[in-house]
This record gives sequence, structure tokens and C-alpha cells, in this order.
Amino acid sequence: PRLAGFSLKCFCWLLEMRMTNALILAYMRKANLITEIFQKTQYSEPPMYSPQYLEKQVEEKMVEVLPTGSTAPQRVAVAVRCLPPYVPKPSINGGNHDHIDAQKFQYATVRDYAHAYSSGRFTPTQVAERFLAAVEETQKMSPALNLFIPLDAQNVLSQAAASTERYREGGQLSVLDGILIAVKDEIDCLPYPTTGGCTWLDKTRQVTEDAAVVKRLRECGAIMVGNTNMHELGAGTTGINPHYGTTRNPHDRTRISGGSSGGSAATVAAGLCPIALGVDGGGSVRMPASLCGIVGLKPTFGRITKSGLLPLNWTIGMLGTLTGSVEDAYIIYAAKQGHLPSDKLLSFPPPATLPLLNDSQTESTNMAKLIGDVKFAKFPKWFNDTDDPVGRICDKALQLVQGTYGCKVVDVSIPELQAMRLAHYITIGSECSAALGVQYENVGQKVSGGDVRSTITIFQCFNNREYVTAPRIRSRCMQHHMDIFEKADFIVTPTTACTASPVREVAEKYGELDYQNGGLPAISIPVGYDDKGLPIGLQLIGRPWSEATLLRMAIAFEKICAPQLQPEVYFDLLK
Amino acid sequence: PRLAGFSLKCFCWLLEMRMTNALILAYMRKANLITEIFQKTQYSEPPMYSPQYLEKQVEEKMVEVLPTGSTAPQRVAVAVRCLPPYVPKPSINGGNHDHIDAQKFQYATVRDYAHAYSSGRFTPTQVAERFLAAVEETQKMSPALNLFIPLDAQNVLSQAAASTERYREGGQLSVLDGILIAVKDEIDCLPYPTTGGCTWLDKTRQVTEDAAVVKRLRECGAIMVGNTNMHELGAGTTGINPHYGTTRNPHDRTRISGGSSGGSAATVAAGLCPIALGVDGGGSVRMPASLCGIVGLKPTFGRITKSGLLPLNWTIGMLGTLTGSVEDAYIIYAAKQGHLPSDKLLSFPPPATLPLLNDSQTESTNMAKLIGDVKFAKFPKWFNDTDDPVGRICDKALQLVQGTYGCKVVDVSIPELQAMRLAHYITIGSECSAALGVQYENVGQKVSGGDVRSTITIFQCFNNREYVTAPRIRSRCMQHHMDIFEKADFIVTPTTACTASPVREVAEKYGELDYQNGGLPAISIPVGYDDKGLPIGLQLIGRPWSEATLLRMAIAFEKICAPQLQPEVYFDLLK
Repeated sequence: PRLAGFSLKCFCWLLEMRMTNALILAYMRKANLITEIFQKTQYSEPPMYSPQYLEKQVEEKMVEVLPTGSTAPQRVAVAVRCLPPYVPKPSINGGNHDHIDAQKFQYATVRDYAHAYSSGRFTPTQVAERFLAAVEETQKMSPALNLFIPLDAQNVLSQAAASTERYREGGQLSVLDGILIAVKDEIDCLPYPTTGGCTWLDKTRQVTEDAAVVKRLRECGAIMVGNTNMHELGAGTTGINPHYGTTRNPHDRTRISGGSSGGSAATVAAGLCPIALGVDGGGSVRMPASLCGIVGLKPTFGRITKSGLLPLNWTIGMLGTLTGSVEDAYIIYAAKQGHLPSDKLLSFPPPATLPLLNDSQTESTNMAKLIGDVKFAKFPKWFNDTDDPVGRICDKALQLVQGTYGCKVVDVSIPELQAMRLAHYITIGSECSAALGVQYENVGQKVSGGDVRSTITIFQCFNNREYVTAPRIRSRCMQHHMDIFEKADFIVTPTTACTASPVREVAEKYGELDYQNGGLPAISIPVGYDDKGLPIGLQLIGRPWSEATLLRMAIAFEKICAPQLQPEVYFDLLK
Repeated sequence: PRLAGFSLKCFCWLLEMRMTNALILAYMRKANLITEIFQKTQYSEPPMYSPQYLEKQVEEKMVEVLPTGSTAPQRVAVAVRCLPPYVPKPSINGGNHDHIDAQKFQYATVRDYAHAYSSGRFTPTQVAERFLAAVEETQKMSPALNLFIPLDAQNVLSQAAASTERYREGGQLSVLDGILIAVKDEIDCLPYPTTGGCTWLDKTRQVTEDAAVVKRLRECGAIMVGNTNMHELGAGTTGINPHYGTTRNPHDRTRISGGSSGGSAATVAAGLCPIALGVDGGGSVRMPASLCGIVGLKPTFGRITKSGLLPLNWTIGMLGTLTGSVEDAYIIYAAKQGHLPSDKLLSFPPPATLPLLNDSQTESTNMAKLIGDVKFAKFPKWFNDTDDPVGRICDKALQLVQGTYGCKVVDVSIPELQAMRLAHYITIGSECSAALGVQYENVGQKVSGGDVRSTITIFQCFNNREYVTAPRIRSRCMQHHMDIFEKADFIVTPTTACTASPVREVAEKYGELDYQNGGLPAISIPVGYDDKGLPIGLQLIGRPWSEATLLRMAIAFEKICAPQLQPEVYFDLLK
């Protein structure tokens, strides 16, 4: 049952009392099948403590290898070279609210910004000023959007000034120079503290340098515009935050943005940045992307260094991106690449690749042929167990792509989803409670609200046997996925089972797909809207290390079935 | 306090009662610093769930690379080629019990056996018959040695007959053809069940095929002579087993063999096999090797497939070998090599190498120079905190090698050993209880003795936070080791702090070095004896993947300071 106010306080108090704690937890354990699945079931699998894929499983065609040891600007240059030639949009975003014309709405891309800067139509400083004014405006709205936790206007302007100067001198660092990028407040980005959506965590942990990926983006000239709001501790998927306000959905401000990377999703959806960084441990990038009508990409676990992320867990969360278009996901993916020697927990990935998308005649035909050879694995239950029209719209998108390219769809079923979800919960919860550990007890507990206190008390309740059984289930479920990849190239699902809920009536159901896919790469792309104009996302899950094919496929979906609707709250910084 | 009989029964009963369990465990937690180290201390390290070393840290000189994809006989042929030319021993083992002559005692090596077979002096069948008679004899002694759990004489003889036939036809498969190899009863070897030293485990788990390494040894023609006795569940290091009898030390049958691979160590020490397989999770190969006066090698975690081992834990135990000589450790190391695609938990090792030991003039000089460049890290506390003369004899051995080659010794200290030991205990205990899981509850608990029941109840008492903290400590301690390897090439320690204890007065102290070195390769070699004639072992711990340098160094130690004393119980199968 959902609790709030006094009842939540009582629950939390009973949970923290040693005597009642044991009784409540024993009951919850049984009710949630934990006893059954984690104590009474026999497994033959060894634990897969962290996702491990040792080899690329399929040979890739029509891809460009990103040179190892290259700098971020070099990788971005490769990415731009592999994209279709840039064609300036005739009129960038007319801002027409009429629904029929608005179907043509497209977010300004990184290359639109770069073109505006290079052509002299705008300077990064002008765009940064517009951005800051727009953020202020979103905070004056009622209800406010609550996009950012810390944002230092002066800092943004000085980065913009430096970029403007580079453009003036013709010395821009890459196509990302002057591009505004928002960072989830779980990723270290100077000069901000990293709050993780809490009020106390930054008091126990000093930020002394940028996260590795932030450093790479700065090398490209990108402007870090502030740290975005998030679900407290990343421990939920609604984006409701009692301390920094609930991030609202730009498509309907009475509704949630999703989470935990809600601030990042809403910032991009509102047109404020073409790109935001997020962290995805079980849908935390893809779900808010879906609810906000944008693109959410989570690469394979181990693909990109996590150095400088708040350690809320170690073996689950992966850096992901929220972008207005697949093309921008593509560029930022190239920029972020690379490992650090200190990345002990990450397996060594094969070299990162990008799909060749240059639009020459032969390549276009070849690409169509490549896509035509694709097989999708569809789990019908995931399409059926959704609010109307979510499953229907996703199905239609799939059929459209199928019709255009002639790809095949095979029905599959993913067994043991309940066990997988519980294993995911126990793993992420245990890692979170161990990561926060003594700091939470000494500092956090006193100042946290009832929901976080209950969450952490529950996180701490598992014993070592349940803990070790969780990665054994992870092994088994990874095998289930691999079995599906014997029959198909992508698993296709609706990203969420319903569209964004009103803030006051958050549906439990929508998190239905919040399961641990074991660290496989996945992307969520907007494919349509419900009758209230709320976005619907479709998710593609690929084989380990298959980001290049995933991006190629996503581009195909985007071309065919992503008629964008302009959000209710939208700013066109290039108008 | 050590408990036995009625007091152990009471303790076990109190431990299994829910009410008293909580009280006892809370007390033990506090007394053992678990609360302090695992709950109250803050760590910045991510968990290292399983030992992960991604690269070879030092370039190797004078080594031969074992070709990947080669068969076991091919690898063994490479090993033999890299060894010094074989010189038949003038008289293999005179069996003289006089101490002065006995100093010249050497175990018959694989090449001694192969020579005996090839020259027609003996057939594998004759040796197998002698072996079977000798094993029978060890069981008639009072006290009996209790070397094997299951041993099927008929099966041994039929393998021997096949080998004899191959030699007759000149079609022997490798130098290992006809070699007797004993296997710890934790490694699947047909036609035997795998008991793990228990009476019930084999009833819950069917052995359907040989372990991968056993398959490789059979490809080489080796004869599997039976599964050796072990400490129940591998959960102790004395080799005392209430079900199959305590394995006695061939040097003094009133004393323990050590464990958990005690049966394997004693079988080799008694001259019954030149080679036995063991599993080492915290000294389980090296400690009994040391107490029995033989060579124990544990390769880097991840070096060799563990497919077909009893899953008592996943991230700790590693296949190791017990041999009468370093040369035989060298040959068997080559034979065992290789991964299986199913080895999900193992990191990808760099190609396995062997040191070139061919005795040509230049190479000999080069080898001396290589060894002269070596630096040893010595932790003085480990030499001082031993029973006399253990530390002294180890020190003398080190000085002898230093004097001969001119290597350097630097004093180091290994911090946080207590935390490391506890982290090791929590990890191995948690994995063991999760691995046994429901089978233990349904079948094992009823039939297990008080010590195992207490052990497993304690294994199950840790919570998820303690569990996750353990691998974080593992990360940190691995870093401590890596810091030492910045200053030195090997860590050198006495393998155990005292020589073999009498069975009735097992000293707690001797397990002092039973700590988790994080999966680093290590070897124990006999370097002397105490005044009772009990063996003393010296341990070398090397960098990840440095088995070749480890073997080269071990050969140097063996040459200079391993005056073998013939054990009290000894059989010369080639006499």
C-alpha cells in the first residue's frame, strides 16, 4: 500500500524498531516471494556479480571503429563524418502549437546549434543567456518544473564566453563546442556539489574534480549548464523529490517526468539543452525519456567509464544520455567513450563502433538491406499489459518499420521476470545501503524523510544468502536473454506500460518494465502519443556491445514513426 | 574457544535457535570486530566481487608462450621441451632412513615415471598395482592415513592397462601417460561421486562428467587414481574429517596433514602419486603442501577453468596442484591450461607462459642474471610470529638464495590483515552458504555434525551490508598488494606459522597466514625441517599472471635449499 504523511511516519518508525522490524520484514519477505525465490529455490548458476560479456557476439557491418586512444574531439569528428551531411532546417521550429503542424516539430540538434554558431546567427553566449532566462521562467510557472538542483548562472556564462571567443577566433574544439549539456546530479561536475537528490550526501563527500565523461565533454567545448533534479538517491522512477521539488513533465506540468533522471529528461524535452547526461540502473534514463518524448540511450554495462559518479551502486547503474534526437545520442556516445585504468569492475569492451550513416546511394541501399535482415523479438505480454494505446502505438511503430524494411518479428517470452525484478531490487538495494553505509547512519538518517528512511531500512534487511542468490538469478536471466538473441537481434518492448501519470496519482504499474536486463545496451525512442498528447516510448534492447546496430535501428525508427509533438512547455533557443 | 562433544552440541543447538542465535551472533560480531570493520568504517573502494586483473603488469623474459588452442598433450610437450634435459636418477630413492643420506631424498618425478615406462623397467599396470597395495597398507596402519574417500581399484587398473597398452605400441599420449594423479574430492572425476568431504552432498548433486581439467589430464594419458580426503566442505585447514577419518601426515602419523586438500598433500608426500589436484581458497593447497613437505602451486584466479568443481564458492577457490617437485608443478600447470566459454566469472588471462629452463650455458647465465634482478618483499612480522624454527629456516632459505644470486630483500608491511581475513571469511562463508542453500537445509543439516552445523549457521549470519563491504575491503587489500609489487617482485612468507600439529592439539596459530591474497598466484616449497623432522614451507606470492617467474624462482629455491627428508610413511613405487 502507498503511505504518506502520518501513516508513513508510523511505518518508518516501526521499521526502524528492532522488534517490529523483524516481524514486518518477515511478512514482507514472504508476501513478496523473497523467501520462496531466494531461500527455497535451488540454482545451479554461479553468481554474476557484475555483468560480464567477454566477446562481441556478432560481426558488425557498415560500421566505423572509433580509434582507441583518440581524444574526445577526434571521436566526435569521426561521428560527424559518419553522419548524413548536415542540411539546415528550413525554419528551425516554428513554435506552432497547432497539432497538425506540430507533428513536424523536431528538437534542434547539436548540428543545428553548431551551424547557428558557425554561421554567426547566434553566439554561445546568446544561447546561454536565453537558456538561463528560460530556466528562470520554468521556475516561475505554477507548478514549477524543478529542473535543476544547483545551477550557477555566472559559471554558465563564463563557459559560454570562452566558447564564443573560440568561435570568434575560428578555433572551436568540435561540433559540441558551445553546446549546452545538463548533468544529472549524480555525476560530478564542478563547481557543483553532487547531491544525489538528497540534502545530506554532499556534506559527506567532496567533489574535487569533474567526472571523467564531463572532462571529455569539456574537451569538446561543451558548456555544462548545471546539475539536474532527480529522484532522491535514484531510488525511484517517478522523479518526485521532496527536497528539490518534483520535476514536472514539459508535455503536461500536472504530470511526472519519470525518473530517476527526471530533471535531465525534462530539461531536454523542454528544449533547454539538446543533450543531458543520466544514469540508468533499471530504466532510470529510458523511462523518463519515454515519458518526456525524447531519446534515452543506455550503453552496455562496462562500455564507458563511471569514474566520478556518485557510488549509489556499482554493478547496475550505467551512464546514459537523454537527447532530442538519435543523431545527438550518436554524437555524445562517441564523445563519452573510453575507459580508465582504475575501472576495475568493468570488463574490457571490444572497440566502440558507430554505424555508417552517410547518405550515399549505395550505402543507403546497403543500410536498408542490413535493416531488412533484422529480427525483432517481441514479448506479447509486454505489449498487452499496457494502458491503451501504449501497446497499440508501439505495435504500430514496429509494423511500420517492418513494412518499410521487411524485417521479421518473432514472438518470445522472457521467463522468471519476477525473480529478475527481485534480484535487481536486492542487488541495487544492498549496494546502495553498503555504499551509503556509515554516512547515512551518522548524517543522513536524521535528515531524511520517511520514504527514504523506509527504503534504506528495507535495503538493509537482506541477508548474505539472499544477496548471493541475486547474482545467481542474474546469471540465469542473462542466459534467458542470450537465448532470445539466438533467435533475434533486438528485444522490442514499450519502454513504460503507461504514459506520464498525474503527480498525485502515480501509478504503480508504469514501472512494470523496471527490471534488470543485466546491463545490455538499450535505447528508448518516442514513437507516438496517447489521446492526451502524452508521449509513448518504444525500447530496443540489443546484444552486448551492439550499440552501433542499436543506433542504426533507432535512426530507422525515428525516421519512420517519430512524429514529434511540441511539448506544452517548450523553448526554442535558436528562434 | 574450541568446543567438542557435548559442549559443541549445546553450542550448535543454541546457535540454531532463533532467539539465542541473535544474541550469540551479536556478541561474536562485536568480539570479532565485525561491527567495527564492516559497519562503522567508511570505505571509498568499489567492491571487487571477484579478483580482476586486466593486464599483465610486467614484461616477461626467457619464457615460452603456450599456444592458445593447443591440446593438453601439445602443451605438455612444450613444457618438457623447456625443461632441462632429463637425467635418470642414479638410483631412484634408496629408501635409506638414515638422516644424513636421507637429505638426498627426492620424490620420483613425472619424468622418472615416464622413463621407467619407456625404458620398459616398469609398466603403468605394475605401478598401479603397487599403488593400490600401498594405499591398502596405509589404511591398515594404526592410525590409518585416510588418504582417499572413494577409490575404485578396478577402474584404476583398467586405466593402467590402457596406458600399458599404449606404451607397448609406442603410442603414449604424452609424458603424463601412465602417471598416477589423485584428485581432491571437490573436483568431478568419474566414476566417483564428489563428496566435498561430506556424507550428503553427493546425494544432491550428480556427477555426469569429468571436470574440464580432469578431461585434459586424461587426454594426456594420466591415470586418475581416486578422490582424496579433505576437510569437510573445505571449511577448515586441518584435514580433520569426522566421516572419512583424519588424514594423517606421512612425516608423523600422529599429526595433521593440513587442509583442506589434506588427502592430496599426504598422498603425494607418501610417494603414492607424483601429482595431486587440490583447490585453494585461502591456503588450502599451500598449507597442507607445507605441512607435508611438498610443493603447492595456486595459479592466479582466472588462469584455469574451474568447470566441474564442486561449487562451494565461486570467487575464492582456485584449482591448484600438489607435487613432489617444482618440475612436476611446471608440467601439470601446462597440461591444465585453458578456459571454457562458460567461465563467465573468470577474467581473460594473458596467454600462459613457462620459464625456459633448458640448461645450455648462456641460458643458465641469463637465468642467474634474471633471478639476481629479483626483489623480495619480506614482512618481518610474518617471520617473527612463528614457532621456532619456522621463521628462522625460511629466513635462512631466503638468505641462501640471496647469497647465490644476489637478489634484494626489502622489508614491507601488509596493512589491514585483520580486515582482510574477516572479509575473506565473510565472502567464502556467504558463498558457501548460498551454494549449499536449500540442499543443506533439506538434506545436509540432519546428517551433519555439530562443527559443520555451527559453521554453516555462522556462515549464514551476515547481512547484505557486511557482505558488500567484504569485497570493498578486498579491493583495498588488493591495492595494498599492488603497492608492494611496485617495490618488489615477490612477497615471501613462511607458508604456515608452525609445523604440523598433533591431531589432538591442533594449534589455532598455524592458520595465521590463511588470508585472502585476492587471487594472486603463489607457490609453497619445502625449505627445511624443524627438530622433529617436520617440514617447513616457504611461500612466494607473485604478481597477477606471473606464474612463469614464480616457477623459475621456485626452481631456484628448490635447487639451493630443499634438502628433502624422507617421510616416515613413504612408498617408492619405482624401486
